[in-house]
Order: sequence, then structure tokens, then C-alpha cells
Amino acid sequence: MSELSRTSGVAIPTIKYYLREGLLPSGESTSANQARYSAHHVARLRLIRALIDVGGLSVASARGVLEAVDSPDLPLGHLFGAAQLAVSQTELYSTPTPGGGRDRIDAVIADRGWNVSNDNPGRTGAANVINTFTSIGHADLVELIDDYADAAEVVARADLSSVTRQPDVAAMAETVVAGTVLGDAMFAALRRIAQEHFTHELFPGNDAVDRVGGRSPALSTPT
Amino acid sequence: MSELSRTSGVAIPTIKYYLREGLLPSGESTSANQARYSAHHVARLRLIRALIDVGGLSVASARGVLEAVDSPDLPLGHLFGAAQLAVSQTELYSTPTPGGGRDRIDAVIADRGWNVSNDNPGRTGAANVINTFTSIGHADLVELIDDYADAAEVVARADLSSVTRQPDVAAMAETVVAGTVLGDAMFAALRRIAQEHFTHELFPGNDAVDRVGGRSPALSTPT
Repeated sequence: MSELSRTSGVAIPTIKYYLREGLLPSGESTSANQARYSAHHVARLRLIRALIDVGGLSVASARGVLEAVDSPDLPLGHLFGAAQLAVSQTELYSTPTPGGGRDRIDAVIADRGWNVSNDNPGRTGAANVINTFTSIGHADLVELIDDYADAAEVVARADLSSVTRQPDVAAMAETVVAGTVLGDAMFAALRRIAQEHFTHELFPGNDAVDRVGGRSPALSTPT
Repeated sequence: MSELSRTSGVAIPTIKYYLREGLLPSGESTSANQARYSAHHVARLRLIRALIDVGGLSVASARGVLEAVDSPDLPLGHLFGAAQLAVSQTELYSTPTPGGGRDRIDAVIADRGWNVSNDNPGRTGAANVINTFTSIGHADLVELIDDYADAAEVVARADLSSVTRQPDVAAMAETVVAGTVLGDAMFAALRRIAQEHFTHELFPGNDAVDRVGGRSPALSTPT
């Protein structure tokens, strides 16, 4: 185990915790207090850290996702479902709020001809964001949904094609999980970058280098 | 205050907490233990709840964002910067990890001709996701970045145009904040929906209605 810790960079107490919690399979026992760990254990430890540190999953959510990865017969749709549920354990995706948001997102899905089950957590999530925009007096921002849906199509199509390019079922499963969890973070990071670019484009003369220094034009003088 | 609580649906101890923490401005004192609150207070309370409940911000982050909203002379670029920093208080955006991720995202930004400061938190965030994909043996998923960047352009352009459509500076500031914070949640929800749609499209015969029931084809038989 100390070698596994050295190779993976994960501390021994943390490895023991993952073993106890069922996130990491046991090693092959070679004596009373020795076990053999393989490259598979190193890879699994890195995936666990990625889900928890970068994806922000709880240990319980990570376990749910890894159980799906370890079920090679699970249909792809179910694997996506398990990964989505694991990254959607917040109230936003699980607790519907009052308002017209659900009707609106259902209409967007129907208009686009999207084939999506009623229990996809994204329906509740999108509905809750719409209800929130309305409650803070910004029903106008709900209009953003069509551009956002266009962008979601581009990303989801790329997500699926990355999965189908994988050489085997285990790699496909891992791709679904890693892509679903880390993809949210990837997109949010790129959105921050692109927002700054378009701010400079809309307000020319606002030099990116001086963002912190303060030469950008005032809000009151959009051109 | 009890009327403010009734109108806004926020409990009195919570309102007192927001007052103490400086998220909500004081009411106009009318006697020793009475104060007058306006529609502005009701609106501000709803915005605070949206930032914390839907956007997932901490109280400290929400305060940073609201200070930016309350600075009408702040340049638009700075307002976006403040909103982005507030929603990027996690390690993902602030602590660079080792690997070639930063060079890769810097190259993507340069190739697209995006005008973005070096301290945009998205650079660190994207670099860390790239490093994570590589560390879990899925360097292939880094290729997703171009499609994700295309999608981020669509979303960021829509974000900016929603801001410039606002009637006044205060509304613009609020739109930047609400849009930045809630937009991540909106996109993530739509991505989950679109992923399911493309899963069905790629694996036909997999009826959306039966997602939980289990009629979808096995991972081992992609067509």
C-alpha cells in the first residue's frame, strides 16, 4: 500500500478510507498484512481524485458513478443517467420550485424534437433556473435559453462522439463518467474566458492586459 | 421587518444575518425598533437567495458580487471580473496543477484571437481540467476543447447581448451577476438534457420513456 500511495500521490489514510467506502477494490492478499495492487488501482485512484477534486462530487456520489463504471453490461443510456444523477445531487436538480419554468423547458425540448425522459434531472434544473430568473425580476434572461440550448447541442454531440471513439466498454464507461463530471467544469471555464473576450469586443479600447488595473470604459458608456 | 419577511419569504433571522453581513442595506429607521424597507429590499433579498441557493455561492462570495452591483461607475469588464471571481472561488480556478494544460488553453485562446487577460480565472480552470483528463489516462478528451470553445462563444455572445439590452446601469450590473452565476447552472442542465437526446439518437430503439426501466441497448452493442 505504501508503494500504491507513492505511485498515485494519494496518502495512505485516504487510500484506506476509499477501500472502506468501497470506491477502490481490495488488492490481492499476499500475506496477513500485505496486498498486491495493480496499475488498475493506480488508475482508479486518479479517477476517484478527479471526480472528487475537480468534479466536486461527494464520496457517496463518486461511489455511485464508479459502480456504474464497473457494470460493463449497463446500457449506455443508463451509464449517462448514473453519471448525470451523481453530478446532480444538489437541490437545484432534485427539488422543483413553483413557477412556469417546467412548462417552458418542456416546450423547448418539444420544439427541438429532443427525445428525453421526464425524469432527466436537467428538466428540474433548467426549470428552477427559469423560475429564479423570473423571481428576481429578470424574466428577460429566460430568452437566453435558445442560445444556451444551441450550445448544449454542440457540447452533447461532442460528448457522445468522444464516448463512441473509445476502444472498449470499460473505456467508454470511464469516458461517460469523466466527461460528464469534468465537462461542466471545462465549459464553465471557457465561458468565463469567452465572456471577457466579448466584453472587450463590445467595448473596444478596453485592453485585456489592464483588466485589473482599470482602464476599461464605464458601464454607463456602452458603445 | 416582519412584513419584509412575509413579502420576500425569507425568515427574519436570515434577514438579520444578511443585514449584519452587509449583503442587505439597512432600512430607513422610523423609531428605535422599527425600520422601513422598500421594494428595493425585497428585490435584493431575492437576488441574494438566487446567488446562494441556485448559484451555490458562499455568503462571502455573494457579498463580493453585490458590492460590484452597487458600484454603478465600475467598468463593465470589472463587473464581469468580479462576478467571475465570485463564482470561481474554488480550488479548480485558483490553484494551478502541474502539466501542459496551461499551454494548451493559452494556445486555444491565441488561435481564436480571443482578447483575454492572463489572470482570467477560466485559464486556470480549463488548464486544470486538461491536466486532470491527462492524469486519468484520457488525454483524448482534451480534443473536446474545440467544440466546447465553439459552444462557449455562442453562450458568451448571448450573455453580453442580454447585458447591453438592459435599460440602465443598475439593471446591467444585476444582469451580469445573475447571468454569470445562474448561467452555469442553466447550461449544465441543458447539457444533461441534450446528452440524453443524443444517446437515444446514437442508439436508436432506446425509448426515452424507458430510461429507468431498462430497455436501452447494452454498451457493448453501439451501432
